[in-house]
Amino acid sequence: MEITFLGTSSGVPTRSRNVSSIVLRLPQRAECWLFDCGEGTQHQLLRSDIKTSQLTRIFITHMHGDHIFGLMGLLASCGLAGSAQQVDIYGPAGLEEYLWACCKYSYTNLTHRIRVHQVKPGVIFTDSDFTVSCLPLKHRVPAFGYRVQEKDRPGRFLVEKAKALGIPRGPIYGKLKQGQNVTLPDGRIIRGADICDPPEEGRKIAYCTDTVFCEEAITLAEDADLLIHEATFAHQDANLAFERLHSTSTMAAQVALAAKVRKLIISHFSPRYAPGNVLTLDNLKQEARAIFPQTKLAYDFFTYEVPRRRNSEQ
Amino acid sequence: MEITFLGTSSGVPTRSRNVSSIVLRLPQRAECWLFDCGEGTQHQLLRSDIKTSQLTRIFITHMHGDHIFGLMGLLASCGLAGSAQQVDIYGPAGLEEYLWACCKYSYTNLTHRIRVHQVKPGVIFTDSDFTVSCLPLKHRVPAFGYRVQEKDRPGRFLVEKAKALGIPRGPIYGKLKQGQNVTLPDGRIIRGADICDPPEEGRKIAYCTDTVFCEEAITLAEDADLLIHEATFAHQDANLAFERLHSTSTMAAQVALAAKVRKLIISHFSPRYAPGNVLTLDNLKQEARAIFPQTKLAYDFFTYEVPRRRNSEQ
Repeated sequence: MEITFLGTSSGVPTRSRNVSSIVLRLPQRAECWLFDCGEGTQHQLLRSDIKTSQLTRIFITHMHGDHIFGLMGLLASCGLAGSAQQVDIYGPAGLEEYLWACCKYSYTNLTHRIRVHQVKPGVIFTDSDFTVSCLPLKHRVPAFGYRVQEKDRPGRFLVEKAKALGIPRGPIYGKLKQGQNVTLPDGRIIRGADICDPPEEGRKIAYCTDTVFCEEAITLAEDADLLIHEATFAHQDANLAFERLHSTSTMAAQVALAAKVRKLIISHFSPRYAPGNVLTLDNLKQEARAIFPQTKLAYDFFTYEVPRRRNSEQ
Repeated sequence: MEITFLGTSSGVPTRSRNVSSIVLRLPQRAECWLFDCGEGTQHQLLRSDIKTSQLTRIFITHMHGDHIFGLMGLLASCGLAGSAQQVDIYGPAGLEEYLWACCKYSYTNLTHRIRVHQVKPGVIFTDSDFTVSCLPLKHRVPAFGYRVQEKDRPGRFLVEKAKALGIPRGPIYGKLKQGQNVTLPDGRIIRGADICDPPEEGRKIAYCTDTVFCEEAITLAEDADLLIHEATFAHQDANLAFERLHSTSTMAAQVALAAKVRKLIISHFSPRYAPGNVLTLDNLKQEARAIFPQTKLAYDFFTYEVPRRRNSEQ
């Protein structure tokens, strides 16, 4: 599971930061998911090594322009590039109507290429490897945070060990792989756990934007390996955060601390903290780290591979 | 009158060319007009020295995404940047409905900041210095080409010459400045033309995209100082041009020749002619120049100052 930030500015693009979008590369699949799609996301993808042909799902947090104005261009370009695959798009009420209105007026035919799902709190997608759920955040318009949870995987079956113990090949191997205990024809009882590595715990990622501090963000991020949380403002601009229902660096850190996550990456920065100003992103980083030391600042094209927990950490 | 190309690719952006937009800087006014607004136009403006606060009018040729998907982001960002000025937007049927639908679903309030005008063939705007007119082109959806005509200006009043001739200051100066003939109190008749430089002929620019070869483009470009014409395809791909109702390099050159323009700049190139391919933009340039030697190829951020005609050329 590898995250790449395609846009890390809030509201408007700057010369160095585009508006919101992140891409999640799934492990052992040639598949990418996008979270938010501000204007210029397709341009950022062009500058990355990510192939739009691998894009299968897009999750939209809310309907503000800096999170959705790149959707139509990206989807239209995927079509022009001859990609026939279908893209599933998840988001709040209005998303589907928005896309079909844009299609209508711009003569863009996406009928057979997109499927739009209006999200409700809870699990919104699951397959053999992942579960995605969402909860409402606290913003000026309906907004959802997302949690992606990789399913736990049984530990590697130690075939050499099985052979050494003289366990006969066949259906018994299958049962042991699944962690079951098995009685052999010779009467020995073999524990699956003894013939397998410990199970691999699935990784968990939470993505919370746009929001002021809220309990739902903590719930989404509970025990996550990575929390990506917006931090539009510095702590001393908390009045702006409360007024506009955005977060400060310290609110993001408090969510990370309360949820006991392993890593926090803050993003969605107001352009007012550009280098040379009184407060800069260094201040936001220090403020967040004072509360939650494992904090990083996102920048465009920053890529982070979410590590698996070692067994001793489980 | 200075033109800057912000996007010169057709359909999709590439790593070096964005989708369509050009900006026209008006002489002696801190004012810019935009023609088309593909996705990422606001990003391109950020990378140029053009201030979005000077943007007063936007002219849209047609409703395909690569010409309009940057509108909402640009207009929303202008608002966030605190620009209070109103922008007049001109374009075909559907443009106004598109913008209000986007505003509605993205919670963007542009009510007091934009005024949308549906264009019809003929003059669509005029003020003391400029006239803008449009005609329908020939594309898969309704498309309009635009002509911007600077009004002729009276020649500079030669005040030293007037003094030397002993012409008394006052209302007589005003009449002479306007080119009138005046009888002085002493009986002499003074011709305005003798006390002024020759009138300056206004410059004319035509912008024709997207279209296959058509007579209306020639009418729009008649005697223009600059014709900007799309050339999506090379001559040998004319079958694609006819199929998709786009132009080849040679069609653009034929329009320029027939309209007797002074300069042709071709743009809106298919990404298929990127460097390293069998046919490249050098081929398109050569094809066009074989018919119309005064042809240039546009590239992103290419700026062209439209020269005034010298009097001897009038």
